[in-house]
Amino acid sequence: MLLSGAHAAPALMPLPVRMETASGRLAVDGGFTAAATAFSDARLEAALGRFVARLSRQTGIPMAAGKAEDGAHASLRVECAAAGPLWPTLGEDESYTLDVSASGAQLKAATIDGALRGLETFAQLVAPGAEGFEAPAVHIEDRPRFPWRGLMIDAARHFVPVPVIERNLDAMTAVKLNVLHWHLSDDQGFRVESKRYPRLQQLGSDGLFYTQGEIRQVVAYARDRGIRVIPEFDVPGHTNSWFPGYPELASAPGPYTIGRTWGVFDPCLDPTREETYRFLDAFFGEMAALFPDPYFHIGGDEVNGKQWKDSAKIQEFARQHRLADNRALHAYFNQRLLKIVEKHGKIMIGWDEILDPALPQATVIQSWRGQNGLADAAAQGHRAILSWGYYLDHLQPARYHYGIDPLAGAAAKLTPEQAARVLGGEACMWAEYVNGETIDSRIWPRAAAIAERFWSSKETTAADSMYSRMEAVSRLLDWTGVQHRAGYQPMLDRMAAGRPAGPLRVLADAAEAQGLGGRARARKYTSLVPLNRFVDAVRPESESVRLLEQSAAKAIAGPAPEDLALLRERFALWAANDQRFQALAEGNALLAELKPLSKDLSALGAMGLEALDRLAASQPAPADWISAETRELTRIERVNAEVTLAAVRPVKLLLDELARKSR
Amino acid sequence: MLLSGAHAAPALMPLPVRMETASGRLAVDGGFTAAATAFSDARLEAALGRFVARLSRQTGIPMAAGKAEDGAHASLRVECAAAGPLWPTLGEDESYTLDVSASGAQLKAATIDGALRGLETFAQLVAPGAEGFEAPAVHIEDRPRFPWRGLMIDAARHFVPVPVIERNLDAMTAVKLNVLHWHLSDDQGFRVESKRYPRLQQLGSDGLFYTQGEIRQVVAYARDRGIRVIPEFDVPGHTNSWFPGYPELASAPGPYTIGRTWGVFDPCLDPTREETYRFLDAFFGEMAALFPDPYFHIGGDEVNGKQWKDSAKIQEFARQHRLADNRALHAYFNQRLLKIVEKHGKIMIGWDEILDPALPQATVIQSWRGQNGLADAAAQGHRAILSWGYYLDHLQPARYHYGIDPLAGAAAKLTPEQAARVLGGEACMWAEYVNGETIDSRIWPRAAAIAERFWSSKETTAADSMYSRMEAVSRLLDWTGVQHRAGYQPMLDRMAAGRPAGPLRVLADAAEAQGLGGRARARKYTSLVPLNRFVDAVRPESESVRLLEQSAAKAIAGPAPEDLALLRERFALWAANDQRFQALAEGNALLAELKPLSKDLSALGAMGLEALDRLAASQPAPADWISAETRELTRIERVNAEVTLAAVRPVKLLLDELARKSR
Repeated sequence: MLLSGAHAAPALMPLPVRMETASGRLAVDGGFTAAATAFSDARLEAALGRFVARLSRQTGIPMAAGKAEDGAHASLRVECAAAGPLWPTLGEDESYTLDVSASGAQLKAATIDGALRGLETFAQLVAPGAEGFEAPAVHIEDRPRFPWRGLMIDAARHFVPVPVIERNLDAMTAVKLNVLHWHLSDDQGFRVESKRYPRLQQLGSDGLFYTQGEIRQVVAYARDRGIRVIPEFDVPGHTNSWFPGYPELASAPGPYTIGRTWGVFDPCLDPTREETYRFLDAFFGEMAALFPDPYFHIGGDEVNGKQWKDSAKIQEFARQHRLADNRALHAYFNQRLLKIVEKHGKIMIGWDEILDPALPQATVIQSWRGQNGLADAAAQGHRAILSWGYYLDHLQPARYHYGIDPLAGAAAKLTPEQAARVLGGEACMWAEYVNGETIDSRIWPRAAAIAERFWSSKETTAADSMYSRMEAVSRLLDWTGVQHRAGYQPMLDRMAAGRPAGPLRVLADAAEAQGLGGRARARKYTSLVPLNRFVDAVRPESESVRLLEQSAAKAIAGPAPEDLALLRERFALWAANDQRFQALAEGNALLAELKPLSKDLSALGAMGLEALDRLAASQPAPADWISAETRELTRIERVNAEVTLAAVRPVKLLLDELARKSR
Repeated sequence: MLLSGAHAAPALMPLPVRMETASGRLAVDGGFTAAATAFSDARLEAALGRFVARLSRQTGIPMAAGKAEDGAHASLRVECAAAGPLWPTLGEDESYTLDVSASGAQLKAATIDGALRGLETFAQLVAPGAEGFEAPAVHIEDRPRFPWRGLMIDAARHFVPVPVIERNLDAMTAVKLNVLHWHLSDDQGFRVESKRYPRLQQLGSDGLFYTQGEIRQVVAYARDRGIRVIPEFDVPGHTNSWFPGYPELASAPGPYTIGRTWGVFDPCLDPTREETYRFLDAFFGEMAALFPDPYFHIGGDEVNGKQWKDSAKIQEFARQHRLADNRALHAYFNQRLLKIVEKHGKIMIGWDEILDPALPQATVIQSWRGQNGLADAAAQGHRAILSWGYYLDHLQPARYHYGIDPLAGAAAKLTPEQAARVLGGEACMWAEYVNGETIDSRIWPRAAAIAERFWSSKETTAADSMYSRMEAVSRLLDWTGVQHRAGYQPMLDRMAAGRPAGPLRVLADAAEAQGLGGRARARKYTSLVPLNRFVDAVRPESESVRLLEQSAAKAIAGPAPEDLALLRERFALWAANDQRFQALAEGNALLAELKPLSKDLSALGAMGLEALDRLAASQPAPADWISAETRELTRIERVNAEVTLAAVRPVKLLLDELARKSR
């Protein structure tokens, strides 16, 4: 599938199902045009206009965004058979074929959403070549493996402003994700305007909520990009923010205030009062009208049952209804809820806690606690999606998420009929430790690897290929407007008090941020704690260290003078950095916590230099030196200031090689 | 004026007239509030809301944007005596005093515009200190030296979209500039919607123009920030774009098309037809209603008179009216124009070509051809502003602009009464070689140095202080939204075809872009040529090289091991860079032109390393080595690919020192 020539294969992500390359290249210059040659409508024309405008940003070449006067002579001819469904729809035909030759390109699709996917593939083909920007000649046939390819954004723990949501929709469509699952309420915030129950947002959001106009705007924005929007109102737990406005809905008397910390809270809807269901009926009815997608997420996770157990009235209700325990009470609640959701014309989806033998099969299960839940749901006749393994807030490396297949683990044993119920998956961006400024860098580029898992074939699993393409696509995503790369340096500059932040950047490039667990262990966070520290700027995964690891591996495998030079240069930079960093950090509260980390980085640099010297020497390294240094590495790789030093890894590779040689 | 303590003095720019520091610091945290304690209105409240929102971005600390419930207890109490004029007005009171102590801050001003200036000073005081973000205790009394402190943006040569204009207004107000001079028509584009003469924009703009609604929006946006907006419609020359729609206005028969190249064109309004004046009367009337400021710019520059000379009819008219030459004809035109401008209640301003003994003194002269024109105008009773020396498009270093004083040169000899007619100046951002993507990096941060020239005392001239403050303020400007820093890496990434752009960045950091002259000499540009090359990404002035020059100077002056280490590190990086760059550039048309430049940078690196070795040696360097290397430096410092290698400068410092020592 690789192209020959000076350039790497086009950095397509997700990889198409089938691609054949040919010789020749299509020049992409100021005369580039795109036009619909068969079906067209306002939505497709708008998509073509956006596509040309983005290609213009991507290349820096002015292009006329208007449609070609004569479609047959457009550089890219888009032959779309029909509009397809009015709203992006689960399971619709998203396939396309794309042919590029020196004389032009042709994209064919059955629906607008298929054409949208193909346009993104074309944009990824365009790169500078020997004559200027160009797209290589290819024949591509493509269609998704799974129909449900989602990103969940939690707008409750920290509010995520509309422009941030919108730019993430642009990035999602660029990697062919097609579902925004919008987590709109949780203990820490109720983020949608209800006209029926206005105290929900008035007392539950600190003023940070989406108006109904904004919701409609985002839903329309997503539709234009072929993305479904599924709202989640998490019930009966995670409802703390509902209760300042409506304490009578809770299972214990109030008063209540908005949650400021994280975790599983006690406050929970009262499943025994008819008023609860009347409220949910009216509220869900209002929300169902706002979100056109047929699927409606009711959460259902992490119900600790404390308020239920403590309430004599609720326990009495349970006895009367022969509900043996909280689990049965929750199942009772879900069955009532399902009737309400269905009354408003929606299909219910919930987290895997709602799975229960009594739950009708029409309900879709979102599995987050493991792959078994997914397999159980599918085996019991439910359709299901996987989110376990795709939790972006844990800040795992991309290869971790990439290695998890929705049809692996317990799901591998499903019959074909059962396996067909696995609709796909969703990456989850929980927002305890992100806000509008930092969320992009926690989603991108790693979500692109997950997007490939959902779209491309099961056999597309080579991590090295994934990384090199992901890092190229990460740069392309800049032009969609997401700030995952752009936000990095300003956050470091902010900490450096107006001075050149070079030494801080060296440290940040060598570090990797801790996710949810590491941060929760480190200190007492609340939703009001500023997210303006080193750990918030540092990336989940260091690209520059990954490249150093490659160099170390090459240097170990055989003669690699350029790689050795790069390693030596970087180690020397680290070794020299601490002195510079300490000068920068003097009297600066934001940098104070990093002083030991910086010292460790310089120690790593010195260790790396010595390891290089010993590798070049004819004598094996002394065993006691190796064991002392290994202990030191073990110390250094521990979490510090809520980050780890990725820089440990290339040094460790060299040390391991020295140990191997000295055995 | 410097503060003691670990941190440098606050990076205030422009420097206030008077500042006294005291001990103590005001903590700036999540509880920070700002409130008006005397006069207030919607404009001031909006300004306080924006101020807190930006302080929140600048610090990364969530702050409630609403006003403090009790103004007397706000962290920053703003005591504004009155609204001041309805619209920002030339010569209004912009003074303020600002007192910061550990217990709070108080800002006093006579007008809202004065309060706006003080808010920006406060924002610049806030930086991370030993306990977190804080503002040092100070007493500041401040007022501008000149009342007219402008930035001219040419939206004609390349269109500048509204969001780009708006973010530049935010940056302007941050450095206390108070005039946006908006160059709205030129040969290459007519950028405003006229309802009276719609073919102006329909046939003269390629569809890239501001609607009247957008103009009103920008004018209101500027007013909120204390900035006047002065439109310029350049007549009678630079009018090529008027003629595709209205060829009858020209001095020669058409047809005409929009200009695509730069320079002085022949097409010119016909000053002999009454229809010309009727057209200008109606059109200026329409525009005068759109721009509330009393000043109205009619251009008047670069009239080559070719069409006038070639027209028998125009020559006959001149004879009849005893107009001896084109200059007299132009003066006649200007007098007719002045009547029209005044009829619509405006004060005429024009470029210095319009200065003529017959021109009434009410007209304001904008001097761009030299300081003499300014002095002449003031001596002849005109008010005048200086733009000569402030042409940002020449890409001169900040210190060059900073060194030019509106009251120096010929103006130094003016009487006090004449000197008082010098209202200030304007930085000019002509747009032949910038577009919406690159314009910010050509304006900022250098315009901040010019802003200081216009605001601060005449004696504020130390370039080193200016640079260190400008570079800090440059980083602060990120939070206003201008992309002068953010746009750099994406432009390099675009060229690097998705691969890590490290070697390209090393080269770009060491280079400085050529301005108007250098680019015009280099190749045939048109307005359709993409501005996506290395020269477009590279900064006008290299901050990292400036710091290296400092290190070289220190290393020459005395023992400076850290500076020597930094020099050695950077030289080694340059020396190693070419091999990496050539690998990146293979088969890449956008990088091909840079291959010789990259080779030169590596040669410089090697030369720098050798110079350091020779400086450390006890023997003086051989004279023939010095002269050979000096010749090589002279070769290397020539323009190449429309940039120069700033990297030459620190190497030259070392070489000069070696030459001195060997004498």
